[in-house]
Amino acid sequence: MSQIGLGLYFLEVFCMKLEHLVGDRFKERPADCQVDSHALMVRGGYIKYVANGIYSSYPPLKRVLKKLEQIMREEMDALDGQEVQFPVVMPASLWAESGRYESIGKELLRFTDRNGADMVLGMTHEEAAVQLVREYAGTYTKYPFMIYQIQTKFRDEARPRAGLIRVREFTMKDAYSFHTSQEDLDDYYEKCHKAYERIFARAGVPEVISVASDSGMMGGSVSHEFMLLTPIGEDSIVLCDDCGYKANMEAAESILEPVGNAPSQPLTKVHTPGMHTIEEVCTYLHADPKDSAKAVVYQTNNEDKYVVLFLRGDLEVNETKLTNFLGEEIHPAVITEECGLHAGFIGPANLNGDFTVLYDRSLEGRNNLCAGGNETDYHYTGVDMQRDVPGAEYHDFAKVVEGGICPCCGKKSIHISRGIEVGNIFQLGKKYTEPMGMTYTDRDGKSRVPIMGCYGIGVGRLAAAVCEAHHDDYGPIWPKAIAPWQVHLCAVRADNEEVRAFADTLYNTLQEKGVEVIYDDRSVSAGVMFSDADLLGVPLRVIVSPRNLKNGVVELTARDKSFSETAPTAEAADAILAKLAE
Amino acid sequence: MSQIGLGLYFLEVFCMKLEHLVGDRFKERPADCQVDSHALMVRGGYIKYVANGIYSSYPPLKRVLKKLEQIMREEMDALDGQEVQFPVVMPASLWAESGRYESIGKELLRFTDRNGADMVLGMTHEEAAVQLVREYAGTYTKYPFMIYQIQTKFRDEARPRAGLIRVREFTMKDAYSFHTSQEDLDDYYEKCHKAYERIFARAGVPEVISVASDSGMMGGSVSHEFMLLTPIGEDSIVLCDDCGYKANMEAAESILEPVGNAPSQPLTKVHTPGMHTIEEVCTYLHADPKDSAKAVVYQTNNEDKYVVLFLRGDLEVNETKLTNFLGEEIHPAVITEECGLHAGFIGPANLNGDFTVLYDRSLEGRNNLCAGGNETDYHYTGVDMQRDVPGAEYHDFAKVVEGGICPCCGKKSIHISRGIEVGNIFQLGKKYTEPMGMTYTDRDGKSRVPIMGCYGIGVGRLAAAVCEAHHDDYGPIWPKAIAPWQVHLCAVRADNEEVRAFADTLYNTLQEKGVEVIYDDRSVSAGVMFSDADLLGVPLRVIVSPRNLKNGVVELTARDKSFSETAPTAEAADAILAKLAE
Repeated sequence: MSQIGLGLYFLEVFCMKLEHLVGDRFKERPADCQVDSHALMVRGGYIKYVANGIYSSYPPLKRVLKKLEQIMREEMDALDGQEVQFPVVMPASLWAESGRYESIGKELLRFTDRNGADMVLGMTHEEAAVQLVREYAGTYTKYPFMIYQIQTKFRDEARPRAGLIRVREFTMKDAYSFHTSQEDLDDYYEKCHKAYERIFARAGVPEVISVASDSGMMGGSVSHEFMLLTPIGEDSIVLCDDCGYKANMEAAESILEPVGNAPSQPLTKVHTPGMHTIEEVCTYLHADPKDSAKAVVYQTNNEDKYVVLFLRGDLEVNETKLTNFLGEEIHPAVITEECGLHAGFIGPANLNGDFTVLYDRSLEGRNNLCAGGNETDYHYTGVDMQRDVPGAEYHDFAKVVEGGICPCCGKKSIHISRGIEVGNIFQLGKKYTEPMGMTYTDRDGKSRVPIMGCYGIGVGRLAAAVCEAHHDDYGPIWPKAIAPWQVHLCAVRADNEEVRAFADTLYNTLQEKGVEVIYDDRSVSAGVMFSDADLLGVPLRVIVSPRNLKNGVVELTARDKSFSETAPTAEAADAILAKLAE
Repeated sequence: MSQIGLGLYFLEVFCMKLEHLVGDRFKERPADCQVDSHALMVRGGYIKYVANGIYSSYPPLKRVLKKLEQIMREEMDALDGQEVQFPVVMPASLWAESGRYESIGKELLRFTDRNGADMVLGMTHEEAAVQLVREYAGTYTKYPFMIYQIQTKFRDEARPRAGLIRVREFTMKDAYSFHTSQEDLDDYYEKCHKAYERIFARAGVPEVISVASDSGMMGGSVSHEFMLLTPIGEDSIVLCDDCGYKANMEAAESILEPVGNAPSQPLTKVHTPGMHTIEEVCTYLHADPKDSAKAVVYQTNNEDKYVVLFLRGDLEVNETKLTNFLGEEIHPAVITEECGLHAGFIGPANLNGDFTVLYDRSLEGRNNLCAGGNETDYHYTGVDMQRDVPGAEYHDFAKVVEGGICPCCGKKSIHISRGIEVGNIFQLGKKYTEPMGMTYTDRDGKSRVPIMGCYGIGVGRLAAAVCEAHHDDYGPIWPKAIAPWQVHLCAVRADNEEVRAFADTLYNTLQEKGVEVIYDDRSVSAGVMFSDADLLGVPLRVIVSPRNLKNGVVELTARDKSFSETAPTAEAADAILAKLAE
């Protein structure tokens, strides 16, 4: 109800008694929660499971989300972003324009409406953004501009997990910028990168880092992911301790040490009965896996065509690099008797058949390798790639390894960490504007295609990430700017007249001063009161009790345990305001 | 960026240059827009068609919607409402619990996810509300409470129309209250009714009235719709000029004048070749349609069973009353030769066959009626309902008519108006809680079922209704509280140095004072500038021009034409603030 001045609307000061707060809190960690933030959000009455990867939000979480959204809104507005709204439900024809109706897998939820029209649920809104502005932005004078929305999205994930970390339905802040030159996009992209750093800092997780990423299904070239490093993260992040290089595993280039050039041995077939893995073979032949070539076999999703990839025996395939190279989706192969491949005995030398055969850079120039003999129960030794696999081309398909060589500074200083992706930014180029026929007339009257950037943050995942980064065994420790309330007022023994009178007055005073207070005046034990307060994670706890009042004080304690002190009752409100202003 | 104090977040002051505003404005009324608000929202760059009944919102509309949402949020919080969020996508099993998965027609969009699970898109959230709180609210001490959300919904309408008036995807504020007694629900319902009046008044449409309504698929008994009366409305509203009775046509009881009791004539079959309509027959027989009984035939949706309804020849069927009576959905019948009905010649006397036959109260006690002869090309005269249709039961199935009798005061003072439904409130009783197994333990330890109310407002439709109520040929006339900006600053001839300097300074001053300004400093004619300003509908226009400056003034004009005056340049900002504060 608090509209003051002109055009200033508050998310008004919202105080309430804990007694009325909708949602249950409890002590026991639910058995199905592997991740702390998930367990605490269930235990604290933040989320309610509705279906696999689909949750309702209780009031405390809704308050956290609104505050996060407001931070994002302010930062987007500061970049001259204009808030718009796209639909959740879109016609398939719109997604067909960009080609994504065909190219995206089952994550894109497709259905037909009552009239049989093909529709989709929006998982991102590049197509809708282009559709909204392609008539408007017909001349160069309209550029650059950015539009954004904060809205529900649906992504039909195969494996939702970890509470709000990976869900199917989520709220996302997604922004789309349009430009007439790469320089202008570069500038704006950089500004947006800085705005993202501010958003994460304001949300209480300044430790979020940006890493170079793979652009995947979004298209485009340059892109960054913002990662909160945590062991429970789903992504592997490649970090160089020396030069500061940071990249998602999917995007990190694999660099290998040069290998000494011993004279080539002859190609020799050896009997290796029942030895299907490179480990078994290397052990049997007393060879180092680094001196072997292993085969990993896939099939394309569309035609089930076989793709055989050879790489050094000790390395792993980076499937993102492989998919990007092929330009289509793949899955692990089912090797049948008819296909011409001998599972466990596939090697690069003398491999014949109708397969796509690819070679990782780790095999380039190598010799004296052991590898499959392309005959059941046989391997080769002495494989010389140049001699035995003439004409092979080598590309980077391998995962970077711990202790590996940094592609930036060249030192052996690579560390690999886990991280949660809390945001991403992409330079999309003409990936959407060109196929969707968006053009503008430039200064010289020529028709040109604009280029695009896009910028996303999942609101609920960010809340979960903050909780993951800032919690203890007893509950979340919400940063002040996004905490559901700022003060948790506990009236211990509210049946005591003095306690009741003092706490009620303090509650009203704080409310008048614009402090968001959750007020616990239930007749429960101090233990129950404090464990509930821990679960709500409000930064400042104020305890009014008979003993405190007898000593003429109230207790102020920080949820993050950074302080615990008393203030004279007469100065309680001022002391609280001072603490909050710190 | 404007966080001041503690816990106070602004929807910050948002000023911008019109030059950068995304969206086109134009003069021509689009041919496909029947309704003014639709035409103006297209012409003014508010909405973009995406698919049938699905739109994107441009920035000006998004700003109007956010302000409406904030008004609703404040009023819901003032009722101790707690904001939550339910999912857009829900499992079918949840809707099966209440029975609505079966009972609702094609408006409920059903689909299967990638794992083949049946899902729905939420069109309302009663089931989700019960699911969220049924464990929490297990004891009487938790009651009453109300939870609400503001969120996207999808309703697969057969005939979307009129821009944002009837769409398929929309944002709705929906609230759900839970109670342990009818008295408590009555109290809360009344409070919510008052809150709705405040919401519509604050949104600039205090003329919205509440009318008694039919509860339809929502279930429950007492319900009200909030209606903006306008000729383009889809609903018919029954109003008594005398006693103030107000009801939706669907819910209004039809009251008829008693008819004089002439002696009954004998039942006589007459030849009426080719006369299929009641008008043709009455003209031929020189009878008043009021002295005839007509048949209207339906079939049930589930089994295609025939339902024959007889009512007075001059009245129309209220299909809602009929559906409620039958307890199932119906559609107009296809009368085949085999079915035993003679289309155009169906009458209540001597009608034989396997039909459900119903009689409207307008025929109760009537005699000397003409009606179908149940034989092709024949009618009866002299039908006496009591004598010729013994055992008939009479119910209210007719539509109220203009000039009819008020069911409340009994005077012939009924007017019928058209209206747009902008909100509704329902007493749901146990319609959802009982089948979904929600119970609580009362003070005496007994298990009981709570009762529910629900309260909805469509945000986009309200914006369109306000536009419909407040516009002229040139654009919307937005009320100050929900206008996208408060001041539209026009720098006519911004190439003039003096104009540019003065207007730029005024823009900055107003912004600093917390006024939301849209600033037009384009080098376009005053005509283009003003017609754009008309389309954006901002309440106060401020014109800086060479001529004005020469006279030492700026011009202040109201979009609603209530004033047009000048203020000395030195006092321009103060004069604007004073106007806005009026």
